Amino acid sequence: MSIRIEKDTMGPVEVPADKFWGAQTQRSINNFKIGGVRNQMPIEIIRAFAILKKSAAFANAELGVLAQEKADTIGQVCDEILEGKLDDQFPLVIWQTGSGTQSNMNSNEVIAYRGHVLLGGNLEDEKKKIHPNDDVNKSQSSNDTFPTAMHIAAYKMVVETTLPGIEKLKNTLKDKSESFMEVVKIGRTHFMDATPLTLGQEFSGYVAQLEYGIKALKNTLQHLSELALGGTAVGTGLNTPKGYAELVAKKIAEFSGHPFVTAPNKFESLAAHDAIVETHGALKQVAVSLMKIANDIRMLSSGPRSGIGEILIPENEPGSSIMPGKVNPTQVEAMTMVCAQVMGNDVAISIGGSNGHFELNVFKPMMVNNLLQSARLIGDACISFNDNCAVGIAPNHGAIKQHLENSLMLVTALNTHIGYENAAAIAKKAHKDGTSLREAAIALDLLTSEQFDEWVRPEDMIGGLK
Amino acid sequence: MSIRIEKDTMGPVEVPADKFWGAQTQRSINNFKIGGVRNQMPIEIIRAFAILKKSAAFANAELGVLAQEKADTIGQVCDEILEGKLDDQFPLVIWQTGSGTQSNMNSNEVIAYRGHVLLGGNLEDEKKKIHPNDDVNKSQSSNDTFPTAMHIAAYKMVVETTLPGIEKLKNTLKDKSESFMEVVKIGRTHFMDATPLTLGQEFSGYVAQLEYGIKALKNTLQHLSELALGGTAVGTGLNTPKGYAELVAKKIAEFSGHPFVTAPNKFESLAAHDAIVETHGALKQVAVSLMKIANDIRMLSSGPRSGIGEILIPENEPGSSIMPGKVNPTQVEAMTMVCAQVMGNDVAISIGGSNGHFELNVFKPMMVNNLLQSARLIGDACISFNDNCAVGIAPNHGAIKQHLENSLMLVTALNTHIGYENAAAIAKKAHKDGTSLREAAIALDLLTSEQFDEWVRPEDMIGGLK
Amino acid sequence: MSIRIEKDTMGPVEVPADKFWGAQTQRSINNFKIGGVRNQMPIEIIRAFAILKKSAAFANAELGVLAQEKADTIGQVCDEILEGKLDDQFPLVIWQTGSGTQSNMNSNEVIAYRGHVLLGGNLEDEKKKIHPNDDVNKSQSSNDTFPTAMHIAAYKMVVETTLPGIEKLKNTLKDKSESFMEVVKIGRTHFMDATPLTLGQEFSGYVAQLEYGIKALKNTLQHLSELALGGTAVGTGLNTPKGYAELVAKKIAEFSGHPFVTAPNKFESLAAHDAIVETHGALKQVAVSLMKIANDIRMLSSGPRSGIGEILIPENEPGSSIMPGKVNPTQVEAMTMVCAQVMGNDVAISIGGSNGHFELNVFKPMMVNNLLQSARLIGDACISFNDNCAVGIAPNHGAIKQHLENSLMLVTALNTHIGYENAAAIAKKAHKDGTSLREAAIALDLLTSEQFDEWVRPEDMIGGLK
Amino acid sequence: MSIRIEKDTMGPVEVPADKFWGAQTQRSINNFKIGGVRNQMPIEIIRAFAILKKSAAFANAELGVLAQEKADTIGQVCDEILEGKLDDQFPLVIWQTGSGTQSNMNSNEVIAYRGHVLLGGNLEDEKKKIHPNDDVNKSQSSNDTFPTAMHIAAYKMVVETTLPGIEKLKNTLKDKSESFMEVVKIGRTHFMDATPLTLGQEFSGYVAQLEYGIKALKNTLQHLSELALGGTAVGTGLNTPKGYAELVAKKIAEFSGHPFVTAPNKFESLAAHDAIVETHGALKQVAVSLMKIANDIRMLSSGPRSGIGEILIPENEPGSSIMPGKVNPTQVEAMTMVCAQVMGNDVAISIGGSNGHFELNVFKPMMVNNLLQSARLIGDACISFNDNCAVGIAPNHGAIKQHLENSLMLVTALNTHIGYENAAAIAKKAHKDGTSLREAAIALDLLTSEQFDEWVRPEDMIGGLK
Repeated sequence: MSIRIEKDTMGPVEVPADKFWGAQTQRSINNFKIGGVRNQMPIEIIRAFAILKKSAAFANAELGVLAQEKADTIGQVCDEILEGKLDDQFPLVIWQTGSGTQSNMNSNEVIAYRGHVLLGGNLEDEKKKIHPNDDVNKSQSSNDTFPTAMHIAAYKMVVETTLPGIEKLKNTLKDKSESFMEVVKIGRTHFMDATPLTLGQEFSGYVAQLEYGIKALKNTLQHLSELALGGTAVGTGLNTPKGYAELVAKKIAEFSGHPFVTAPNKFESLAAHDAIVETHGALKQVAVSLMKIANDIRMLSSGPRSGIGEILIPENEPGSSIMPGKVNPTQVEAMTMVCAQVMGNDVAISIGGSNGHFELNVFKPMMVNNLLQSARLIGDACISFNDNCAVGIAPNHGAIKQHLENSLMLVTALNTHIGYENAAAIAKKAHKDGTSLREAAIALDLLTSEQFDEWVRPEDMIGGLK
Repeated sequence: MSIRIEKDTMGPVEVPADKFWGAQTQRSINNFKIGGVRNQMPIEIIRAFAILKKSAAFANAELGVLAQEKADTIGQVCDEILEGKLDDQFPLVIWQTGSGTQSNMNSNEVIAYRGHVLLGGNLEDEKKKIHPNDDVNKSQSSNDTFPTAMHIAAYKMVVETTLPGIEKLKNTLKDKSESFMEVVKIGRTHFMDATPLTLGQEFSGYVAQLEYGIKALKNTLQHLSELALGGTAVGTGLNTPKGYAELVAKKIAEFSGHPFVTAPNKFESLAAHDAIVETHGALKQVAVSLMKIANDIRMLSSGPRSGIGEILIPENEPGSSIMPGKVNPTQVEAMTMVCAQVMGNDVAISIGGSNGHFELNVFKPMMVNNLLQSARLIGDACISFNDNCAVGIAPNHGAIKQHLENSLMLVTALNTHIGYENAAAIAKKAHKDGTSLREAAIALDLLTSEQFDEWVRPEDMIGGLK
Repeated sequence: MSIRIEKDTMGPVEVPADKFWGAQTQRSINNFKIGGVRNQMPIEIIRAFAILKKSAAFANAELGVLAQEKADTIGQVCDEILEGKLDDQFPLVIWQTGSGTQSNMNSNEVIAYRGHVLLGGNLEDEKKKIHPNDDVNKSQSSNDTFPTAMHIAAYKMVVETTLPGIEKLKNTLKDKSESFMEVVKIGRTHFMDATPLTLGQEFSGYVAQLEYGIKALKNTLQHLSELALGGTAVGTGLNTPKGYAELVAKKIAEFSGHPFVTAPNKFESLAAHDAIVETHGALKQVAVSLMKIANDIRMLSSGPRSGIGEILIPENEPGSSIMPGKVNPTQVEAMTMVCAQVMGNDVAISIGGSNGHFELNVFKPMMVNNLLQSARLIGDACISFNDNCAVGIAPNHGAIKQHLENSLMLVTALNTHIGYENAAAIAKKAHKDGTSLREAAIALDLLTSEQFDEWVRPEDMIGGLK
Repeated sequence: MSIRIEKDTMGPVEVPADKFWGAQTQRSINNFKIGGVRNQMPIEIIRAFAILKKSAAFANAELGVLAQEKADTIGQVCDEILEGKLDDQFPLVIWQTGSGTQSNMNSNEVIAYRGHVLLGGNLEDEKKKIHPNDDVNKSQSSNDTFPTAMHIAAYKMVVETTLPGIEKLKNTLKDKSESFMEVVKIGRTHFMDATPLTLGQEFSGYVAQLEYGIKALKNTLQHLSELALGGTAVGTGLNTPKGYAELVAKKIAEFSGHPFVTAPNKFESLAAHDAIVETHGALKQVAVSLMKIANDIRMLSSGPRSGIGEILIPENEPGSSIMPGKVNPTQVEAMTMVCAQVMGNDVAISIGGSNGHFELNVFKPMMVNNLLQSARLIGDACISFNDNCAVGIAPNHGAIKQHLENSLMLVTALNTHIGYENAAAIAKKAHKDGTSLREAAIALDLLTSEQFDEWVRPEDMIGGLK
């Protein structure tokens, strides 16, 4: 590999001759061989940095502390990054310094040196036309840029991937709920037969869960929309021009299309990442909901012969490499694995969030990586589950009817007529003798056949179908 | 122990002659010997059931399905429970049936049999004047009463204990922040010396954290204020009179003084406890914040001779049984232990919340116990920390001044004058030689003594004191 | 309340006149009003301190640094504590100083002052015949006594309660496994019908899980048997006589009946509680196993009419306050709630364990409280589950037979005869047409009726019944 | 993209013409678009499958159920996979079916079709010379192959990466401990000054922690070495030749170089993954230890001017993009982020492990992915931390000496001479007056200057340097 020499305040470093990065990026490569390529800083963070650096450059130019030509060049490189043209210039892993300084410097160096080339310079030039620190990082510190990139990337992921995914699944389940609203079926509590409800009512509970989850997630967006940028090293805004924090947030909002604002308290923004904790808490709530919903669908579709089998789900793949003809609830399984992961990620984030010290939290890359993973997995899994499973769910009327008619819990309808204890006696007798409720009721002489027919009507036991 | 015989649908059971409970409570005592007295159902749930049962009785009477005299008697016993007169009548543990049915029946039995006595009956009477199921539990099921009691107890704890505790601590920290606003001190990032800020700015970050936490917690109250009551066995409202769900929620609101409403979807309310997950998620966020704040105070007050020592905290107890004269940050330690517990409880709640099946979640007692514990511990710990630590925090001006004057990071102020690399050279030289920045700067011939004095002024490096 | 005045190095404190505790206990009561009576230091820790203090007194006397008469008196009070006579003398809560110093002092004070009374003194005497620090705490520090008490209490709980509970349940499941070994039933993978196995084989998996869990738990006992005592304040053993650490461990082993030894590295014993983390990790593994086992039993016993219903479990309580005759898997529910709690406690312990600083971890009371709770809950829940559920499990032969005969997955037996793809075609046809495998096989002309009978024999598909 | 048509039991599927995979792999690609390329099945699992498939083929041939030529060809492709030549043939993500069936089929298809080509066939041929199910998957099921691959991959990672990493770091810390054994310094408990110890003693605690961790991790290897292979679909070993399970385990042991054996109970091996839970529990314990150790090093090296500063760590990178000359404990930060991640992963694994149903756990890919990530991160982070930080740790003798001499806790040495209360009075006076202990002691007339010098000797307060 051909190399060139770059320098930083600690001295010279060999870097690959054809790469735009410089000494500090290379030091991180050399010093943090942890986890390999799958553990690289998420591309969403790289892109968020591009939005940030462009915004900062333009704000700096507007406020008169950076030459417009430099700002334009920086913006041009940032656009290249956003277009995905420079993805191979960001080799650093998550497991680096906890402030993300090295990834900030990776951005600074690539933007400066690529800018230098765009301005006609050569990578081998000792002095570049754009300086990573003095120009690209002007009015910034890692300590305010990295959390800003965290919020930009997280906000975008939640709004562009997670919420649309949940919404799509919720809408499908809502359609199902409505179309199943008259399908009376046995209810189950304690995993045991209970009084009836309709399949649509059952599904309406899922819809309600997701609606609460969406609301909870949206509740966290305000905090996430607040940006640390302008706080610089410790939150005081040292070395920033007047008006900078507000202006740069405005530019980020403009370039990203999302309503970002400057954080009212920069000390909190650097030293704590409660916004990340808060948003992930809502993702975890959604994971809890999805686990319940997916489990229900797994169990309701169980069978085909010896399970509950009250719903049919699409048959997407051969289910077994040894059992011919087997079909499995594979989308349910992907979904529930995702939910378990999100619940684990929540703990990692909480631990990271609680371990900030003084003016800085140094669990930043780990925290945002977990958030981005959870947010994307939930979004993707909802779409996958929706498209390959939920849309195809259909009632298995035969099984539903059979279970309903066999049920002993219809006896509950008799409570208000003959009292709880008499009703219990009927159910117990039917259970013991293996007969129907009607037979047991008459045998016990507690009511007539006509009364039974009048009082025990599953379709009257399901309330107002709300 | 003197005994009497009570019966339920499964047959006779021996119960202590002097207790108001009946057969089903006793079966639970006999069958669930798990964890002992410290694991009894929280008293807050017992009290919430009292509010609930009274409300249900009055709603039933108003809707004409229960005699007013019975309702009045039920209400009278519930008031006794709320006054704490019957606390020894609720012996069941958390680790019982996951629906809480046995605790619902414990309430039903105690209310019915105590009511029977109030109406002139005798505990030995085979037939009681008030029936646990047919009267006290009228228009109810464990499946909607227990989650209702969960929400009542949780809402009250959060609003009456947790939020006031956090608010009190936040207000104290805010006062401190304001009174420390001019105290310039060294900042620390990566646990290393950084550029200065004021002690008041540092504390303002804590205040902001708690303000976000309070907001996040309040965001969850709407969901928590929605009550399952009226859903009965599976959410359909079987065996309830028309208008009951709304009316009983209104009565609960009235008797409790909190804005409870009936849940829009009862299927969700029984089968999922996402409201508990949601509220505890916010408690966990607060725990994350408090862990950071408490850790900072622990570290800032460390010493007395060999630590950071920039703040002084009250000396409340002898700190060591072997080291005379030692004083420790004991309130910090209680607080951080609480925070760790809350983070653990969050996982227990998430696991419980994700494991509902079909129409019922059967992790109810465990979930609410964890929520009540977390909510109370945070509230209590905030008060304890506030009263015994936060109110007494004072700057240690000597240490603050010494650290500030020694700091090498003041060099950052020179970036905009002589560039990042020259500034770094000064800091490195001072560090290596063990001298002051001024000496190093002049030795390197990078600026004059006058320029140093003009440019390196900590009091100018702290921003606008927002 | 009548009071008397006690003093410590910080000055006078009012204490209840009739209590044996002194100034430092009272300071803790006054300063830590967190969580109330349910959050008191576990009685197992109080008792462990009694063993410890007696052992230390005897070791000190034997090594000539404490008068024998004082040692005897101290031992006498410790015996009273072990007999439960002084339980109301230990009012402190878990949420105190994280070293447990205040509980150590509570023990020191109660032992000293009660000893003073036993020696003829009066509680009002300003000078007591036994001094809490100089006598009872001789050769000790909170920093080595509290972790020693943690290990004593935890070891005892695991060995006396947890392991016997798991063993008992394991033995019952083993008996069941053996007696069900010939009961051929359908298998289920992905919650879908699969090839057959016997009910005994299914249960043998549960037995294996618990055997691994027992082994894992026992693997942790060595670490837990190592005691910090002798390390005093920071691990160096300052102020202890020669040979003390070994001798006091020997006495603790003798008085407790468990093989305790002195820890080889006292610095680790004070600053880290990895032994607690390690033991609880094994408890968590057992919880994971028990959750799986209990869930299976919940699902296998589901019904009675519309579930899987392949096993019958004891009917212990009326299952519903509204649905007459309902019986629920209540022991399963208690068990799975316990498992969720243990998984949550594991996180609290990990967070506590990871947050030690320098020579001391100050999450001690929280950590041991979680361990003791988990250890006891698992032990108790295993006994409860065993006695009230597992012993009564019986196959429901009717359902088992019906499910087996209906199964499409028996087709797997044909793979080696006609190939996977042909076998799949048969299963698919039978599924589509709702017919038996035999009918489908013959209709497809893939084999004869005789071949079907010879090749598709469930009893030949279950391996060697190991 | 050029395509060809492949078929499975569900019909034809379009696959890329130049890829070796077939219909079932393609269905998984189409149906599980979750998480993208960073979420692909870990390469370690792909490689483990290669070892497994080769072993199975050779065992099948040896037992006479597979032609030797086919076995040889299968073995040849497996070798290509192990050499990394076919890495781009395994595109599936973790978030697929929870049994890993699709990845098993991905292996089966690639091996069969690549084998077909090696045998002179053409990918377009409808009938391949080697069949994915009937040949490559012979005597196997996904249900026993995937857990076998999990154990192979996990065992290798733990033994080849994790343990060597921890050992290396432990050895360095041991060297440091020995070379620092005479460096007397102040101890700190509660983050406050305490009695002295040596820096070597302090480090010996770290060594002990890692030794316990290594032991705990090794304790789990036995369980992990047991392989599910031979259990096939539900654990009964259906469709396997006699002696197969033992033989195939022997071959895996031979090809991998690790002591794998066949699991004694296959039902457990398929339905539960407690071995994964157990091993990860030990990894989590190590993470807890490493978090403590790394935090200590972060804090001990804090400064350079206003922290504790008792040790010096290597300066590896410029620490700040804004603060010139700043050096940070970046290796500590990477390490503690890894520890937080591992603690989170532990929860994901526990949740997955507890959610098996009947004969199969369907959280397999998620569980093993978390284990492999944790095992690798700990191993890599230990090496990185060792090479770039631990080896360069040196005492900062100036700071150590100054802290020791200033310490008030040396007064503890006086307890045995003048009693705890007198000693406390000295410490308090010195603290209040800001003087030395000696001055305070003499001012209080409690001992002479000569006695002070004789009794208060830090070098005598550090025990036997064990």
